[in-house]
Parts: sequence; C-alpha cells; structure tokens
Amino acid sequence: MQSAPSIQKLLDELERLPGIGPKSAQRMAYYILNTDSDAALRLAHAIEEVKDTVRFCTQCFNYAEADLCEICASPRRDKSAICVVSEPRDIPPIERTGVFDGVYHVLGGALSPMEGIGPEDLHVAELMGRLSSAEVNEVVIATNPNIEGETTATYLARLIGPLGILVTRPASGLPVGGDLEFADELTLGRAIEARREI
Amino acid sequence: MQSAPSIQKLLDELERLPGIGPKSAQRMAYYILNTDSDAALRLAHAIEEVKDTVRFCTQCFNYAEADLCEICASPRRDKSAICVVSEPRDIPPIERTGVFDGVYHVLGGALSPMEGIGPEDLHVAELMGRLSSAEVNEVVIATNPNIEGETTATYLARLIGPLGILVTRPASGLPVGGDLEFADELTLGRAIEARREI
Repeated sequence: MQSAPSIQKLLDELERLPGIGPKSAQRMAYYILNTDSDAALRLAHAIEEVKDTVRFCTQCFNYAEADLCEICASPRRDKSAICVVSEPRDIPPIERTGVFDGVYHVLGGALSPMEGIGPEDLHVAELMGRLSSAEVNEVVIATNPNIEGETTATYLARLIGPLGILVTRPASGLPVGGDLEFADELTLGRAIEARREI
Repeated sequence: MQSAPSIQKLLDELERLPGIGPKSAQRMAYYILNTDSDAALRLAHAIEEVKDTVRFCTQCFNYAEADLCEICASPRRDKSAICVVSEPRDIPPIERTGVFDGVYHVLGGALSPMEGIGPEDLHVAELMGRLSSAEVNEVVIATNPNIEGETTATYLARLIGPLGILVTRPASGLPVGGDLEFADELTLGRAIEARREI
C-alpha cells in the first residue's frame, strides 16, 4: 500500500479496536484526516485523559476518577443493596433501566475452571469484607446469564447465604448465553424488577 | 448516566466517528479503558501525528507527508498516465488492484450544479497545468460512477480532448450509483483494465 506512514500507523491502531475491520478503520481515518484539527485532537485528548485520570473505585472496583466512583460517593444511593457484576461495562446498562438505586461491586471477571479463574482471581474477598462491615440487606448477583456467570452466582450465593443476607438474581427474560452488556433496557429492567432469591 | 466525566467525554468523541453508534462507542471506550496505557496512547498519538504531519501533495493533492506524496515522488511510477479521482480516499482501492502504475490527480470533489460546485471549486486548473507542462499520454477519469462523477468525467473529457491526450474511463463493472471507495478489488481492477475512451 502507498499510504503515508503516519496514515498507515493510524489505520493499524484503529483496526485494533473491537469490531473495527479494515474498511471501518479506513472510513474513520479519512474522517480524522478530513475533519478540522480541533475535533480530531479532542478525540486524541479524550483518550489520553481517560488513561490519565480513570482508575478503579477502591470500594466497588468500578471505573472512577477519585478514590470512590460516582455511584459509591453518591449520598442518594441505597448502600444496603449491592449489585454484583463481572465488569465495569455491565453497570451502565443496569443504570439505564432506572430500577436499581443501590450500589455495585465489580468482580473483575467470572469463575471459570476451564480458564483457571478461581475466587482468588476476582474481588470476592473485598465483597465479603463489605458485607461484614456494612449494613447490607440484599446482594443482587447480576453476572452474565452464561455458564461462567451462573457458576459465579451459585458460588457467591453459597458463600453469602450463611450471613443471613438476601441473595437475588435478575429474573429470566435475559436471553441465555448472551451478554448482559447488550441487553435492551426494557428486558433488563423487567429482569431486575422480577429478581428471585437463589 | 453515571459515567465518569472523562469516560462520557470519550464516548461523545467516539460517537462522532462515521458509522459509530452508542453501542460501538461503548465497546471501543471500554477497550481503551481496559487495554494497557501504551496501546491506548499509541492510538491517541497516531491521531495527533496524522493531524500534525499530513498535508496535501503540491502536485496531485493526495495526502502527503512531504511536498510530494509517495506516489508522485516514486521513480517507479509512470508519469505519462494520470488517474483523476474525486478524493484521496479513492486512491487506496485503485492501488490495491495493482493494474495502474501511473500517477494521480485528486479533484477534491465532483461537479455538482445542485450544490453549486463548479470547476473553479475543484483542482481542475492544476490538472490542466500538469497536462500542458508534462508529457502525459493518457488521463484515466476514475470519478465515482454516479451523476456528479459522470458529469465531472464528461466535462473533463471535453476540456482535455482538444489537447490530443487519450482520455479514458474505467469500464462498466462498477455498480452504478455506488461509491468507488467500497468496490471490491477484482471488479475495480477489471473495470480499470477494460477502460474505454470517452
């Protein structure tokens, strides 16, 4: 290819993004080349800023710009209900449903004997710490409705059950085997409202 | 939404990219958040570098990092054949076919009476300048096979004809009404090989 080296470099980097093939990368690169410098640099700076300022919430392991994420820091959130998710990306879809006003706990993955991921690789100990020190009434386990997510939910339910805390799971309605991240708001909202004890 | 401000800013900027909706932007943002800083900053720097170093070739108006683009500067390219295209993004698909070893001329658009775009808004004068000063035997007019592109091709053919230079156009085979940018290599290659005088 005859592209200028800097354009080729941009294409290479864009193609690394998830779901971006050569044609999409080319469209994006030409957009960046054509657009005014301000707009292009705003994107570059947004990437730099995010890598510079975003870290993990010390309490729930969601993405945060301070010690605590905006949800943990909010006085309006109900600290007696904790929703356990695998990844930070699972939080925005739940927030958009508007039916959960508690706080979160991000495990950082899911149990997977196949891949050798055990409880010690996840933020399970930190969750148990939160449950022992805070007045928590309910733990909603919103791990993905696939094998790893179900395994994780069952494991956590057994671990938390003896503490006398209600452990629930979003109701069926989520397509089995799918990713929670891509569920539509109505389905996910109904599933959380109809959550059941496990 | 509860996203950290810097994450929201990144999402906003990603959504400005062509073909990127909210869900794609979110996937890309979480990839950027999850990936190591080096990889994310390489993308940011590639955007900055491209805006910093890329300008237009003073001869053909393709993207370039020096006065001349890599094609105009190459001693291996046949300077007696000029392929006229609307935009720089039309050059890579033609290059990939491997059937054209001449040089290019980018018009910077196409004639459009509807949008008030006339010859004076395109690099037509510069093309005529190249034709009068250099030993050019053939001009291949590879504007898009849509109304504006055909109008531009006809206009240029009339303008160049009196100079005694062969004027050709890629053969049919390109889907009419489509964008040259997205043509597959085989079709586009055959169309250029079977180009006809107009």
